[in-house]
Amino acid sequence: MEGTAGKVIKCRAAVAWEAGKPLVVQEVEVAPPQAMEVRLKILYTSLCHTDVYFWEAKGQTPVFPRILGHEAAGIVESVGEGVTELAPGDHVLPVFTGECKECAHCKSEESNMCELLRINPDRKVMIGDGQTRFSVNGQPIYHFLGTSTFSEYTVVHAGCVAKINPQAPLDKVCVLSCGFCTGFGATVNVAKPKKGSTVAIFGLGAVGLAAAEGARVAGASRIIGVDLNPDRFETAKKFGCTEFVNPREHTKPVQEVLAEMTNGGVDRAVECTGNINAMIQALECVHDGWGVAVLVGVPHKDAEFKTHPIHFLNEKTLKGTFYGNYKPRTDLPAVVEQYMAGELELEKFITHNVTFSEINTAFELMLKGQSIRCIIHMDG
Amino acid sequence: MEGTAGKVIKCRAAVAWEAGKPLVVQEVEVAPPQAMEVRLKILYTSLCHTDVYFWEAKGQTPVFPRILGHEAAGIVESVGEGVTELAPGDHVLPVFTGECKECAHCKSEESNMCELLRINPDRKVMIGDGQTRFSVNGQPIYHFLGTSTFSEYTVVHAGCVAKINPQAPLDKVCVLSCGFCTGFGATVNVAKPKKGSTVAIFGLGAVGLAAAEGARVAGASRIIGVDLNPDRFETAKKFGCTEFVNPREHTKPVQEVLAEMTNGGVDRAVECTGNINAMIQALECVHDGWGVAVLVGVPHKDAEFKTHPIHFLNEKTLKGTFYGNYKPRTDLPAVVEQYMAGELELEKFITHNVTFSEINTAFELMLKGQSIRCIIHMDG
Ligand SMILES: NC(=O)c1ccc[n+]([C@@H]2O[C@H](COP(=O)([O-])OP(=O)(O)OC[C@H]3O[C@@H](n4cnc5c(N)ncnc54)[C@H](O)[C@@H]3O)[C@@H](O)[C@H]2O)c1
Ligand SMILES: NC(=O)c1ccc[n+]([C@@H]2O[C@H](COP(=O)([O-])OP(=O)(O)OC[C@H]3O[C@@H](n4cnc5c(N)ncnc54)[C@H](O)[C@@H]3O)[C@@H](O)[C@H]2O)c1
Ligand SMILES: [Zn+2]
Ligand SMILES: [Zn+2]
Ligand SMILES: [Zn+2]
Ligand SMILES: [Zn+2]
Repeated sequence: MEGTAGKVIKCRAAVAWEAGKPLVVQEVEVAPPQAMEVRLKILYTSLCHTDVYFWEAKGQTPVFPRILGHEAAGIVESVGEGVTELAPGDHVLPVFTGECKECAHCKSEESNMCELLRINPDRKVMIGDGQTRFSVNGQPIYHFLGTSTFSEYTVVHAGCVAKINPQAPLDKVCVLSCGFCTGFGATVNVAKPKKGSTVAIFGLGAVGLAAAEGARVAGASRIIGVDLNPDRFETAKKFGCTEFVNPREHTKPVQEVLAEMTNGGVDRAVECTGNINAMIQALECVHDGWGVAVLVGVPHKDAEFKTHPIHFLNEKTLKGTFYGNYKPRTDLPAVVEQYMAGELELEKFITHNVTFSEINTAFELMLKGQSIRCIIHMDG
Repeated sequence: MEGTAGKVIKCRAAVAWEAGKPLVVQEVEVAPPQAMEVRLKILYTSLCHTDVYFWEAKGQTPVFPRILGHEAAGIVESVGEGVTELAPGDHVLPVFTGECKECAHCKSEESNMCELLRINPDRKVMIGDGQTRFSVNGQPIYHFLGTSTFSEYTVVHAGCVAKINPQAPLDKVCVLSCGFCTGFGATVNVAKPKKGSTVAIFGLGAVGLAAAEGARVAGASRIIGVDLNPDRFETAKKFGCTEFVNPREHTKPVQEVLAEMTNGGVDRAVECTGNINAMIQALECVHDGWGVAVLVGVPHKDAEFKTHPIHFLNEKTLKGTFYGNYKPRTDLPAVVEQYMAGELELEKFITHNVTFSEINTAFELMLKGQSIRCIIHMDG
């Protein structure tokens, strides 16, 4: 691999040329990493709703041609100037949000919203020089979330790369890059349910199932899954959900249904839908005195959170989280170790595997709601 | 004092016979405490807005004749059946909210909202038998907040009585029964600012000033007072406020004014107004990543808290508190010790002293906004 350092690499990437059109797996040129950047060889990547959302580009300013992808695992191929904490051969997870270790957020124990490297879906070039590192016959191809992992090689800011145990199976831990940590961290780092407590999870997609896994690991005795789609309930049983509520099957508001099931309210609620009604319900369904509701879903830009302030006076807490409050470089290595120690069950999230040339199949599976995570093997 | 146990006591009380009419200091009969009750000799009581609010009885179902008063200090005169933790002669603070030590709230470390003895302003009789212990010539006089401290003797549920250090000066520590602990606890127990942080206090009445005292004790380096009434600013300086914002003097929303003053937002905000706009501003003015807003004010029953959920996704936390999250019996003795050790400055809250026969003067001072706390000496 050393032979490639400092040189342009030609490799395969799946390019999104147009909104909603199948990705084209083709040869691209990947420029060498500049100052504070690293070039990664991606071995496994998985597909997340956010990729599909920016690929569909509905209600957005479309950015094409672009290389999508942000859940992945790989190996450092080469590093740019000034990169001291990473070296060729390191096993890593690229992450859509970074950690500069210098800003007020990075220095605060409470925040993971790095001023410099915080997620920015509108950015399509590298931060350092405002250029793209990808091209096809001289035509620039844009970046996505600073990761663009649907490529055999990609260039990423060094602050967005977590160095992990080289023993870790990359085809499993790649899911830690986004959805799993978002949901799992929302429960274990933010909601923090006590052993024996009751947790409601609103939304049983990949993020909600990871939140349920967090409740299981934290020792919750009841995990109540809430979803409008009853197809999700069967799957959610495997993720530790003990009961289910479909708001559509009740005439009463779901807050009341949950209060009746739990003698006044759940101890913790984690909202993983993006729907504003579910966000409000999550707050209102927690028990007074000690209940904590955590919002994870990304709301519509015009959404309005409305509630009676008595819920707060009655000592409920409302929080939100971004990437499960994990600081990617500081915290991800330990999450990998948790998996290695058998504490986390990542396998159950991985419902499908495809080769890189079949990447459009991964999109179809997700659009049909058939997959939780489909791992894309870059060598095939 | 022993001679009175088990007998009706005749003593002076200030009876509110009609909404908004001066209290009448006159002789009342106080029945002996029943099971789980104690009869207290009140030595000092102070006046709080809540007394004035129920005396004015605007927009409420009026309850008269009634003995108001809930901030006080006294000595146990006698105890009813089953009371084991209190004995005649104990120095105590009666509190408007109690601690049964048996319910889920009392057993939870996180809540102080006792199921049995939680504040209930509509209740006008004792919990045990639904009767009142006060009468005038056989006519029942109603209780208020389970305390009715505007009487030389009163009967209180034993779960609403904190036993304190007998060395503590009762004419000072009586203010711990309500306003001080509410504001101070909101900051130190709930907002928990770190040393050197910036805290905004919305509303500079007694509760807000106590919240500012909490910020001072916690080591905040900037304490920004926000009030619509500029008369409050001079007083608030003595309570550690370092800067002031009057929303009426700005064309921009106060959230933006505060964000500009603090490089993106305050670390903590404590709302002590009861005004819904201030509640929303308190959330919106805290820094993303780590900001915590705490609501203390009692909102209008039709108030609606409205905000964009992005504030939560950006990792702000919204909480509320009731009585500063103090458990009255468990926690108040230690607050008294903090005062005895010179850590709390209660004296600056006490702006006036009057004798019991002058109690209506205390109402006038509060209505004119001239007092923070006026101590009523029962022996005069
Ligand atoms: N905060 C972060 O860092 C972060 C990171 C990744 C994803 N997300 C967000 O998390 C959310 C969930 O992601 P996902 O991939 O699991 O999505 P998904 O679409 O697979 O799952 C969402 C589920 O919510 C259910 N749902 C929708 N409205 C509902 C309602 N009112 N009540 C109950 N259930 C309802 C749907 O039926 C669906 O099963 C999305 O909003 C996504 O944008 C947040
Ligand atoms: N949660 C509890 O346990 C508890 C206990 C006691 C009192 N309280 C509540 O605390 C609040 C404060 O009590 P207090 O006795 O200090 O009242 P107060 O009336 O003396 O002080 C309130 C202050 O808020 C200011 N204010 C009003 N609207 C404002 C706005 N929009 N922006 C900025 N300032 C504004 C007023 O000018 C006033 O100075 C009340 O709502 C009271 O009911 C709560
Ligand atoms: Zn940073
Ligand atoms: Zn994702
Ligand atoms: Zn209790
Ligand atoms: Zn009060």
